[in-house]
Amino acid sequence: MGKTKLGSGSHLLPMPVVLVGANVNDRPNFLTIAYVGIVCHTPAMIEVALRKGRFSSDGIKKNETFSVNTASVDLIEATDYCGIYSGAKVDKSRLFEVFYGELKTAPMIAESPLSMECRLAKVLDSGGSHEIFRGEIVETYCSEEYLTDGRPDLGKIKPIVYDGSSSSYWGLGESLARAFQVGKDYKP
Amino acid sequence: MGKTKLGSGSHLLPMPVVLVGANVNDRPNFLTIAYVGIVCHTPAMIEVALRKGRFSSDGIKKNETFSVNTASVDLIEATDYCGIYSGAKVDKSRLFEVFYGELKTAPMIAESPLSMECRLAKVLDSGGSHEIFRGEIVETYCSEEYLTDGRPDLGKIKPIVYDGSSSSYWGLGESLARAFQVGKDYKP
Repeated sequence: MGKTKLGSGSHLLPMPVVLVGANVNDRPNFLTIAYVGIVCHTPAMIEVALRKGRFSSDGIKKNETFSVNTASVDLIEATDYCGIYSGAKVDKSRLFEVFYGELKTAPMIAESPLSMECRLAKVLDSGGSHEIFRGEIVETYCSEEYLTDGRPDLGKIKPIVYDGSSSSYWGLGESLARAFQVGKDYKP
Repeated sequence: MGKTKLGSGSHLLPMPVVLVGANVNDRPNFLTIAYVGIVCHTPAMIEVALRKGRFSSDGIKKNETFSVNTASVDLIEATDYCGIYSGAKVDKSRLFEVFYGELKTAPMIAESPLSMECRLAKVLDSGGSHEIFRGEIVETYCSEEYLTDGRPDLGKIKPIVYDGSSSSYWGLGESLARAFQVGKDYKP
């Protein structure tokens, strides 16, 4: 069968790349992560996992809000910058044009094609290096130029994904097939 | 600013696509999902969210093991098939060549480029439609033909990702930049 054992690391390949927004000491801060996933459909819930002690964590806990902003090819340098430098050392409040939604304290990035505004639902200890923030997605904001027939268009958004194996960002190729269609008549 | 509100849905775009493996009634079953994410680095932990009452859920709880298998372009039809049809109705135990690792009860897909074998750490109620299974990744198996210099190579693996906006699968394009490098000298 020719399988090689790679050990116990995290090999989810690829992972989405997002910028998590939080107000810290009343100033917007943005942190790039790939440990993110949807965990519930109804209501829509998302989790982001942050290494314990991250600068943003206290802000999320204090305000009980955060945002999740899509990283795109156009934002690749700023995205990487927000993953390298901590808000404890550099001021990231002026990197982007910031806007707020109905929760008032979850800063979002105007330049990001798509932003999700989240109300903190739960803080969970992973039992290891990371703390998990579960949020209910209360609203999603998409810039009009990235919509087609009222829906976000990945071909326009050009999101980037993270390859943890080579520590690099990848772009998307093309839409290959319709889900819940292409395998309908599959015969094993 | 031109932002359109899309409501409270889950707009994480794109999401990874994986086949979750579990033994149910002592037979391997595989379920395709996109609600998956890494939640801890040390130890490596992954979460998968399944709609409550899924056929695989009881098997995961009983054996306290599951697997996460990468969906690739080559497996796109079988992947979609495993997302459409429940194990309660069709027998998915012979769709793939199945192998087991050290946990003995987490079935993995030989044809999948990369499989993570997980020990169940926690079952969490999302508070809504989904149940969350957190697992510690105890081992990762990669077929040799997908490795370059001993590491998984995304260019060879050709994973697919899910676009929930158009309900379609996308392939990856190319590696765009090194993470923790391209934004090092970024000047806002």
